[in-house]
Parts: sequence; C-alpha cells; structure tokens
Amino acid sequence: MTPGQRELRRARAYLSRVAEPPAPALCELISDAGPVRAAQLVTAGQVSARVAAETAARRADDRAETDLSAVATLGGRLVIPEDAEWPAEAFTCFTTPGAQADDRWRAPVALWMRGAGRLDELAERAVAVVGARAATGYGEHVAAEFGYELAEGGFAVISGAAFGIDGAAHRGALAAEGSTVAVQACGLDRAYPAGHQRLLDRIAGSGAVISEYPPGGWPARHRFLVRNRLIAAFAAGTVVVEAGVRSGARRTAAAAAALGRVVMAVPGPVTSALSVGCHLLVREEQAVLVTRPAEVVEAVGRIGADLAPLLSVPRRCTDGLNPELLAVYEAMPARSPRHPEQLVRDSGVPLHRVRSALPLLELQGLVGCGTSGWHRVVPDGAL
Amino acid sequence: MTPGQRELRRARAYLSRVAEPPAPALCELISDAGPVRAAQLVTAGQVSARVAAETAARRADDRAETDLSAVATLGGRLVIPEDAEWPAEAFTCFTTPGAQADDRWRAPVALWMRGAGRLDELAERAVAVVGARAATGYGEHVAAEFGYELAEGGFAVISGAAFGIDGAAHRGALAAEGSTVAVQACGLDRAYPAGHQRLLDRIAGSGAVISEYPPGGWPARHRFLVRNRLIAAFAAGTVVVEAGVRSGARRTAAAAAALGRVVMAVPGPVTSALSVGCHLLVREEQAVLVTRPAEVVEAVGRIGADLAPLLSVPRRCTDGLNPELLAVYEAMPARSPRHPEQLVRDSGVPLHRVRSALPLLELQGLVGCGTSGWHRVVPDGAL
Repeated sequence: MTPGQRELRRARAYLSRVAEPPAPALCELISDAGPVRAAQLVTAGQVSARVAAETAARRADDRAETDLSAVATLGGRLVIPEDAEWPAEAFTCFTTPGAQADDRWRAPVALWMRGAGRLDELAERAVAVVGARAATGYGEHVAAEFGYELAEGGFAVISGAAFGIDGAAHRGALAAEGSTVAVQACGLDRAYPAGHQRLLDRIAGSGAVISEYPPGGWPARHRFLVRNRLIAAFAAGTVVVEAGVRSGARRTAAAAAALGRVVMAVPGPVTSALSVGCHLLVREEQAVLVTRPAEVVEAVGRIGADLAPLLSVPRRCTDGLNPELLAVYEAMPARSPRHPEQLVRDSGVPLHRVRSALPLLELQGLVGCGTSGWHRVVPDGAL
Repeated sequence: MTPGQRELRRARAYLSRVAEPPAPALCELISDAGPVRAAQLVTAGQVSARVAAETAARRADDRAETDLSAVATLGGRLVIPEDAEWPAEAFTCFTTPGAQADDRWRAPVALWMRGAGRLDELAERAVAVVGARAATGYGEHVAAEFGYELAEGGFAVISGAAFGIDGAAHRGALAAEGSTVAVQACGLDRAYPAGHQRLLDRIAGSGAVISEYPPGGWPARHRFLVRNRLIAAFAAGTVVVEAGVRSGARRTAAAAAALGRVVMAVPGPVTSALSVGCHLLVREEQAVLVTRPAEVVEAVGRIGADLAPLLSVPRRCTDGLNPELLAVYEAMPARSPRHPEQLVRDSGVPLHRVRSALPLLELQGLVGCGTSGWHRVVPDGAL
C-alpha cells in the first residue's frame, strides 16, 4: 500500500464513522473534495450547515487507526471506492436517474469487510435471498434449497445473516460450497444475531461479511432499513421467501424495486401468516412469483443464456388426437372389444367416419383389431 | 305448459341427444330454423353436409319423450333457451366477438337440470371453484373455506362435483346454507363420481345439478373438456385451488380466460406438485393470485361495491417518526435512562437536535424524563 493509498483509507475510515448512513450531504462533499480533503474539512468543522448537521455529533471522534487495526485483527479490511475490487457497478443504481429510491440513499462511503472473496467478483453474479426471522420449516427448507442451487449455479447468495430465512439461505450456499455474502447492520466485531457467530465466520470463509458501520457499531433498528438498501443494490435480484404482512423483507423488496432490481417472491400456503407478505408482493405486482431457483436464474440471468428449463409435462397417449378421433377412442371401453356400429352411438361420430377413424387409431398404436372387434391397446382408465 | 311450449321442449330434448356437443353446425341450424323445424329437418335427414356429419349417427334415435320422463322421475326438468330462467346473459360469452374461445364452442342446446334454484338467478352472481381430484388436505381446506365464504356472500358456487377440490367447494357452500351448482359431464341419472351420489342430491336440494347430456350419457373424457366451458361460462370468475402441471382445472381456467372471465389461482407450497398448475397460471399471467375469498369477490364483484377489506397491518409505536426522531428513539436502550449527550454518539444526531427531538418524542408518549435522564415509555425490544 502506498502512503497515498493509506491516507485515502484512513480518511474513509474516519468518514465512515463520522456520519450516520445514509449521509447524502457528506457523500456530496466527498465526491466534490475527495475523501482526504473532505475528512480535513469535516474535522475542522469547515463545512456547510447540511454537512455539519450530519457530522457535528461525531466529528471530534477520530478513531480511524483504531478501527482499521480492530478490523485487521478480525482478519478483515476496509474496502474503499478507490480499490479495484470496489463493486462500483452494483452501486451505480444509487445514481441512476429515475430510480425511485429514497432520495437520501447513497452508495456507502466505504465497506468494512471480512472475507476471502473479492467484492467486485461477488457482486458480478449475485442474488439476494431474504425473508422472515420467525420462518416456518417450509420457508427455511425453500430458502436453503434456493441458496444451494443458486450457489451451485455460480451466484453469490446475498442475505442479512438473520435467524430464519436469511440463515437458511446462507447455509444452503455454504452446503453447495458456493459463495455467500452477509451484509450486517452493525460493526464486524459484533455477531448479530449472537447465535450466528459461527455461521458468520463460515460466511467470511466462503465469501464476505460486510458492513458500512465501523467496529463497535450496534444494530439499531433504523440501521436495518439502511442496510437493506445495500443487500438490494448488491444483488441483481432479490427473492423474498417468507414475509409477514409487515416485514423487513418486504422493505428490502421495496428497496430492490426502487433501485431497479428484479424482485421475486416465493408463494406458500394461504393459511400461513408468513406467506402473506409474499402473496401481497405478487398481487400488487411488485414481485414476480418464483417457485424454483431456475426461475430466479431466468429472471436475473443473462438474456437468452439462463432460461429456466420447462417443467416436464406428462404426456398422454391420446395427445394430439383431433376431437373426432378422441371421441371414437373414448367410446371404446378399456376392456371389452367393440364393433364400429357400437361405437357410433357413444361417440356421436357417423359410421363411415368411425370406420376411417379406427385404422388411424391403429396406426398410432392406440387400438387393435381382434376376432371379437376393436379394442384399446394402451389401457388408459383414468379420466 | 302450452302445446307450443311442450313442442319446443320436445324438439330441444331430441336435439340435445342427436349431436355430440359442441355441435356448431346444428346450433346454427337451430338458430336459423328454430328448434321445432330444425328437429324435423334433422330427423328427415334434410340437412347440410356439416349438420349431417354432426347428427347422422343418432338422428333416427328419437328418445325425447323417454328422456323427459326419465328426468321428471328424478325430480328434474329440461331448461331451454325459450324459458324465462335460461341463463342467457351467462352464455352471451359464446357469441361475443373477440372471445378467444375454441371456435367450435356454442351455448348448450338445452340444459338438463335437477334442482330447487332458478338457473338465471344462480348465474347472476356465481363463482366457479375448481381444482385437482387428488387434492391435498391443504387444497380441500382452502376450497371448503372459499366455498363457504363465497356462498355466505351470496355467490352461487359452481363446480364439477369431482372428488377433491370440487367436492370440497360444494360442501363448503352447503355448510353455509348457500347455493351451489354442479355441472356434470354425464346424464343426470348417473352420479359421477358414484361416491358423490349423496353430495349431488344435496347440491340439487340447494341449487342445481345441470348437464347438457341427456339421461344415460356417460362421462367420456372428451366430455369433461366440453363441460368445462359451461362451468367457465356460468360463473363471473373461476378460482383454481390446486392443479397439477397438466390438469383439467387448468383447462377450465383457459376456457374461462377465453370466454373473457376472471381467472384466479390460489398459491400453495412450492414443494407441492398440486400447486404447480396454480403457480404456472400466475407466472404466465393467465390468472390473478388470490389468497382470500374477499379477494375473489373484489375481482369478480361489482366495481366499487365489493372491495376486499385491507389486511390489518400491525402498527408500531414508532410509525410515522422521521428518520432523525427514530434514530434518537432507537439510540435509547429499552431499560436504562440516557442523557442527551449520551444519545448524540449512538444516534449520529447533533446535540441541539437531540435536545429538540426528546420533547417531541415525549409529546408522542414514547419517552419520558426522570431524575436519572430520558427513558423509553413503551418497551419495544424487538428489532
């Protein structure tokens, strides 16, 4: 790392703590003045009233070096926009004109990260799988399946490391030995939820655990809403597996839609309160209904390259028969043979056409002719 | 009944047996020449080649009187287009230009009927509930609920009296002491399925069992496809509760769509093969996803009069707080009181704004001030 790079990283570490994300005025200042100069101006209090409102409370609190060391101790690092691995493309959605996002949303100032992966590579082919914490067995099963198959298909599975759907999706991806990324709403030195400490370590080993909050940051509720925009932005599409009528997952879905991402929802029993949010998303045309990982891949994948294989449709031996041939075939009981004259009344087909229909049905291997009349060759009793 | 009415009914009884529905050429002849003259021409064989193709096999078989007596013995009757109770409005869909129906489809020549109801009244406010025979417990539960609530809401519940979803929908309507109509693909003297004999009797007692097939007609498979158009036409909308990837219910749905009716599908677990058809209907935009009877009523009901009540959304005490007030509130732990200075760092809000936020939060009853600082009034631990 050159001294210039170290200075940049130090400045962004300071800036990532000095304001509560999203901090649109600070982001504007960084963009105008550059991070090093912006950090100097903020420290000195030589900023506009808007920037001051965002930074006044913490500007004297420069812990950049401590934070960088703390994360290094965890085996992590600070990834900054000046790095080659910065997922710049994923974050263009925050500046795309017309994206109906919260007008305070901005790309993060920097990302604290633990993980083996490279952020830009992880974001290149990524799908978010999110949902309720108090998930059902059904929901966790589906999330794990989706996580597994998407990871196996080369997608990084993005989620929030919460109990329930999030955890199941991460675990599915880990089971496939694929990549998965947890976006946290607190500092990387905290495990949230605490019960997922081991899971978070495994996620870091396979992909990345990231956060825009510096070490020590605690998971206040409003941070989850802010964090959700990063999950949505990081992935090409967001799948909601289970969600109550009011839920963080629906908010992530709204964020994804606002950022121009594909939003998908997995249906479930209408008797389950945990599927109400998914069904609402579909009914309100905010999400596409998806039932299989292949449909997710089709929705977010490269056009033409990632079409979901069609469901195999069971074929019946009578497929393709015109209505008259079908009527003659149907008029023949499964067991006892019939003469053409007997088939006339039950089929409603005139005798001369019954006579021409029978050889056609025989050619198709559906009927045969014996000494006691015509009979079905393929037994087909089910109506 | 006048002699003229008796003659009309006799003619239509003959015509309802002489051709296998749908018989577009015969329908055209009846429309042109009237039913009495059409019956004479068909009997005499003085018809076009197209009509002959439809009627030649059975034209000598005049059982009109026997059929009428047989149905009278069952407590039924033949309802004909010349009757006041003919559901003419329901069947206009067969002649509406632009309806993408099978071009051979026509309104029935007449309808054999057992039942206490009047057909026109039953059709006036009717919803079809259809689905798989090999339904799951979930599907039958949902069908029964929908049948019950729709019937209670004054809708006639239309279905096909099959095992599984159909039967559950009929039973739900019967449990609500509402009206329900079974459309059969065989003569009324047969119970199909045989195990539903008692159910069919109860349906006739509450609404109607109808068929376009004369007594003795047997339920050939092609007749189910033809019958499905009547279920679809009779109802303002069709709800598919469970359906495999290939199923009669999906065909009824396609028929309903072709006839300009509202098609709805109930989602289910993606792990259930019996919900695949429903999900496909939604994914292919052939059906609206519905989760509650109220949503069905909204979709088929009178505009403005039948809106589904909104789902009640749980309210949180922090609803409506702006991000800054929320950040200050969130920065306050659930238990221990805080001084404004302590709230500055965790909320990221400058001191002077924390000081103005606290009285606002107090006005909303969210926080209070004691001797040891500010504290939350409403405990709200869940994230």
